[in-house]
Amino acid sequence: MTRSLDITGQIAEFATSARDDDLPASAIEVTRLSLVDWVAVTLEGRDEPVAAIVRDMVAEEGGRKDAYVVGLDRRLPARAAALVNGTASHALDYDDTHFASLGHPSVAVIPSALAVADMTGTSPKSFQGAALIGMELAVRIGQWLGRTHYRSGFHVTSTAGTFGAAMAAARLLGLTLEQTRNALGIAASTAGGVKAQFGTMGKPFHAGMAASNGLEAALLAAKGFVAAPQGLEGKQGFGATHHGDFDDSAFDELGQEFVFENVSHKFHACCHGTHAALEALTELRDKHGIRPEDIEEIGITVHPQYLGICNISSPESGLEAKFSYRMVAALATHQHDTTRRATFSDTLCRDATLVDLCNRVRVDTDPDISETAAEVKVILRDGTTLTANHDLLAQVDLALRAKKVRAKVKSLLGAERATSLWWKVALGEQLASDWMRRNIG
Amino acid sequence: MTRSLDITGQIAEFATSARDDDLPASAIEVTRLSLVDWVAVTLEGRDEPVAAIVRDMVAEEGGRKDAYVVGLDRRLPARAAALVNGTASHALDYDDTHFASLGHPSVAVIPSALAVADMTGTSPKSFQGAALIGMELAVRIGQWLGRTHYRSGFHVTSTAGTFGAAMAAARLLGLTLEQTRNALGIAASTAGGVKAQFGTMGKPFHAGMAASNGLEAALLAAKGFVAAPQGLEGKQGFGATHHGDFDDSAFDELGQEFVFENVSHKFHACCHGTHAALEALTELRDKHGIRPEDIEEIGITVHPQYLGICNISSPESGLEAKFSYRMVAALATHQHDTTRRATFSDTLCRDATLVDLCNRVRVDTDPDISETAAEVKVILRDGTTLTANHDLLAQVDLALRAKKVRAKVKSLLGAERATSLWWKVALGEQLASDWMRRNIG
Repeated sequence: MTRSLDITGQIAEFATSARDDDLPASAIEVTRLSLVDWVAVTLEGRDEPVAAIVRDMVAEEGGRKDAYVVGLDRRLPARAAALVNGTASHALDYDDTHFASLGHPSVAVIPSALAVADMTGTSPKSFQGAALIGMELAVRIGQWLGRTHYRSGFHVTSTAGTFGAAMAAARLLGLTLEQTRNALGIAASTAGGVKAQFGTMGKPFHAGMAASNGLEAALLAAKGFVAAPQGLEGKQGFGATHHGDFDDSAFDELGQEFVFENVSHKFHACCHGTHAALEALTELRDKHGIRPEDIEEIGITVHPQYLGICNISSPESGLEAKFSYRMVAALATHQHDTTRRATFSDTLCRDATLVDLCNRVRVDTDPDISETAAEVKVILRDGTTLTANHDLLAQVDLALRAKKVRAKVKSLLGAERATSLWWKVALGEQLASDWMRRNIG
Repeated sequence: MTRSLDITGQIAEFATSARDDDLPASAIEVTRLSLVDWVAVTLEGRDEPVAAIVRDMVAEEGGRKDAYVVGLDRRLPARAAALVNGTASHALDYDDTHFASLGHPSVAVIPSALAVADMTGTSPKSFQGAALIGMELAVRIGQWLGRTHYRSGFHVTSTAGTFGAAMAAARLLGLTLEQTRNALGIAASTAGGVKAQFGTMGKPFHAGMAASNGLEAALLAAKGFVAAPQGLEGKQGFGATHHGDFDDSAFDELGQEFVFENVSHKFHACCHGTHAALEALTELRDKHGIRPEDIEEIGITVHPQYLGICNISSPESGLEAKFSYRMVAALATHQHDTTRRATFSDTLCRDATLVDLCNRVRVDTDPDISETAAEVKVILRDGTTLTANHDLLAQVDLALRAKKVRAKVKSLLGAERATSLWWKVALGEQLASDWMRRNIG
């Protein structure tokens, strides 16, 4: 399960030598969408219990005022800032997903890049370039680790994300090629996160870990830390020990094509694994005017990998509800607004009407269905059967995605802030951290 | 590969309910040996490059003056102190080993317990009790993860060590049973460390990671962090994802018997995997008056698992020499003092006489030989063949071990400090951190 190809060398070469001016406009455009989306979901998640707990710990530790910490009135050391901001940004599970790697690229990489940008006074343009390169690498490393890695129980957001976060930081810290290799080597030991945490505070914390550990790897490498030269792909390295697929084709056309461009943004405030089903069910509901009382049974068919992720059958909290096909289907059928995070409350889990409908939702799997798709079959009490399919990858048109992201940001932050965020941050006048501090606190 | 037995519950129950007064005298006695040994090797390792790099990073971050940091003139936050002190204590690879788990228990657990003791003003007695309980659990969790975990490429010092460090910290922070369970759950995501790092700065850093991440898990749990309830043994938890053996018998008689008592201290400043061979070769050398020029070939037979650990055939640095059967054998044959760390220098690796002898050392494996044993066969130029065996577990007599540990500490710190360390720290008048600050700085 080990290969001789110098994956570490390829990654380090790309991270150090790509020029900001040469990054394709379409990739930068998608980076801007992820950036404004990241700001909105991070602000929205900043007072979630897990974010408050982590912030509390590092605020008590104090230290040098290097970097912006969401929800805190003072700066903290970069590693601490990345830990809090990463955790807060994934607290609502409302951030972007890349289905090629099944990971959330922005929440691991952006907080690392942003903390280094704060610490070093990087320009917004270089920050965006580093964020793009880190996210591109997080996605490709996630693809290289592959489905075996993910299905065996690793949270690829944090595992691959740590390497991506390290590369974004390495770039902004101006590391040499050799130092950048060492940063990847260090990350081979600090990258982690198991899927047993799904549905607990552990999941968002993984994003903070990845951001902070990746940044730490770059800081240590900059000081001369020498780690395993092929800690990612070598013998007893990360891939070999963490059930990696070693799909070397994941690095084809690195630097030429930006697979990050296919990232999906979320338009429902629950686990991305439920979205295809939600879109299909909403389509049926609206098209046929289905009312909850008409329904005998709702059948949802998805890829079997989602059973361990978002199939909590009797959720007891708002957090668990986000990982429950049954509850998500019940909410949509009852016309609750699933784009709003407040919808996913503990109270709703005790609502007898919703729980009754949950009990009529049946989740099946089909290994042949795409991982980004779902089939929904609604059987009405009168015997009618209605079916719909949805595949999230159908939503690839950039203009349409931009419109939807901007609508989401507007709904989370209000029209005025959404506009300001776009013009100031996305277009490169201010760092996201400066904007967040000035506009929110 | 998952089990339903509540391992997390058993561990948390033991960590929270064991009373300091009920801990057996023999186990406390061995804890004291490990403690003075830890102080000596930590002070000796404090200026190794990896320790200096990590210290530099956290010193720049600064922060609250909670805990002693070896080699620094001021205190730092507890997580930072544990990171540095753990790294420094394993920098020389001269600390204790438990062969049942193949891990180094003290370097992960003691720095965590000590940082919390500093932060909270714990008594030396409670600190010793927490260190013992944390080390006992690190060893048992290492046994539970088993040989499959270790051989697949995980550094059990840091993987199992993170859980042990979390339990020592949880105890000293006064966590409830539920909070302690959550600390174990958090550690399921932050525990890591791959053997690809062996022979690099990554290996000692793993000890710092384990100490700091374990402490962090306890701090977060104390603030209400809710993690996977069975993150260690449950589905998609640490054991299932990290090639665990799930040897539940590792927890038999927990709290009644202290398997930690069988820990081995090191009397040569190189990888413990080389020691049995070193003892056997030294015995032959001294018994038969063997001189390097008499030797045709040295044959060393060990368990195959050591090939990936300490069989660097042509070491190029002092660090690599510590993981080289061939160089260690050459040094011993040439009467270099392998108990002194300065022996393992970069210069020696370029010594033509030593390299020549290295080339006459042959390493073989035998799956039937004990993991703690080695067979050495020396073939002389006159055709004579001499053989000797050594098993490290033969050295179990407590009085003899105490004598050897005290001699080692004396050789590292000098007679006066060694005596003071014993009376003040081992016997419980001062915390190790206070003694280190006052006696060394």
